[in-house]
Amino acid sequence: MNAGAGKLIGVGVGPGDPDLLTLKAVRELGEADLIAFFAKAGNASHARTTAARHLRAGVIELPLLYPMTTELPKCSADYRRALAEFYDDAAAKIAAHIEAGCRAVVLCEGDPLFYGSYMHLHARLASRFAAEIVAGVTGMSGCWSAAGLPIAQGDDVFAVLPATLPENELMRRLADADAAVVMKVGRHLPKLRRALQCSGRLDRALYVERGTMADAKMIPLTAKADDDAPYFAVVLVPGWEQRP
Amino acid sequence: MNAGAGKLIGVGVGPGDPDLLTLKAVRELGEADLIAFFAKAGNASHARTTAARHLRAGVIELPLLYPMTTELPKCSADYRRALAEFYDDAAAKIAAHIEAGCRAVVLCEGDPLFYGSYMHLHARLASRFAAEIVAGVTGMSGCWSAAGLPIAQGDDVFAVLPATLPENELMRRLADADAAVVMKVGRHLPKLRRALQCSGRLDRALYVERGTMADAKMIPLTAKADDDAPYFAVVLVPGWEQRP
Repeated sequence: MNAGAGKLIGVGVGPGDPDLLTLKAVRELGEADLIAFFAKAGNASHARTTAARHLRAGVIELPLLYPMTTELPKCSADYRRALAEFYDDAAAKIAAHIEAGCRAVVLCEGDPLFYGSYMHLHARLASRFAAEIVAGVTGMSGCWSAAGLPIAQGDDVFAVLPATLPENELMRRLADADAAVVMKVGRHLPKLRRALQCSGRLDRALYVERGTMADAKMIPLTAKADDDAPYFAVVLVPGWEQRP
Repeated sequence: MNAGAGKLIGVGVGPGDPDLLTLKAVRELGEADLIAFFAKAGNASHARTTAARHLRAGVIELPLLYPMTTELPKCSADYRRALAEFYDDAAAKIAAHIEAGCRAVVLCEGDPLFYGSYMHLHARLASRFAAEIVAGVTGMSGCWSAAGLPIAQGDDVFAVLPATLPENELMRRLADADAAVVMKVGRHLPKLRRALQCSGRLDRALYVERGTMADAKMIPLTAKADDDAPYFAVVLVPGWEQRP
């Protein structure tokens, strides 16, 4: 480590299978002075678990534990303020290491700049320090690959939709896209089912839990008997209707 | 090689940087009996170039050369028939190797099941043989990572749009998404500019050529003085308007 040589590196570790790390990610892990990763207090970091076998002995580890905000409504100013303070604080901790000359690697599930918490650090630090992104395989690629499900082809319009959208918005957007991935399914599954039905997409919807883990569960949504779904479950709606 | 052990493996080699191959892709390349790849006659295969350093000495190579169809309109029945025959023929050649017990790896730019030609082989062969997909980093992830551009966050709606869409459709869909990637820009750039302007997205649009190559070109679209764009150029429109 030498002052001035510090750097921020956002490293995508892919969807969860340790073999889906890239060669570049492995190299960055081997050269890191510090690794930082987000986690909920009391839970292991998925990104750290995925990367574990490639961590250098003696590397500094900096867990970034999300604040307990379950008592705050997500749209409230208090919630937004608590999260902004958390990201400010995390960025300040990492900045101190970079200023001391560290190569600071932030482990990211999937791809760093695609719906990842890393983006909050990047927005705060990339203008101050040398910064690099190592692209990763997204969680959704991991899901459709494990399912062997071609998702989009040719001139298909492809959409990523959060299941948090209102039912009529979900319905309209599902009908408007050739192919879609619906994220954050969780308690929104009954609403999503109705939106898929009304948009004519229910019959081709695939429900996926823990897409690239050994205990992955993938079934046609029409075959799923209950409405229980974890927050990170996704529903894949393949396009490519012209397939030969 | 032993008959019965044959297998089809679609391997994503990522966006073009050889270091963005996954560990799993490298392992599959090392164990392949046959590698197949798509290319235009007279051109090198981008996927093969990306994977070159990991190919086993003595592996059988099967180039799949797209038929010369430039004289046929893309929507014509003749064009569709020529392509279908080409994919049928390619699938038959690979099937013969799998039947002989080969591990047949098809190299795919980006991710195999996301807008890739491999899907045409998968659709023809995956029901007949054991088949596996190795997910890859998509070309678009490679682009926004090289640009250091956070693309989508939180409850953003993200869309992938082909620039071939009619102008009013492009405009409507750009205005309707929080974040978007527009593919196949090429000769559609003037139309795309107008659609971005009308949808209020022009100011944040980033124009990208050869996203993850050493000679990548990335500039704000408003700073691009001409309308020359190669077919594979993309335009990135980042979301995350709530960023702190």
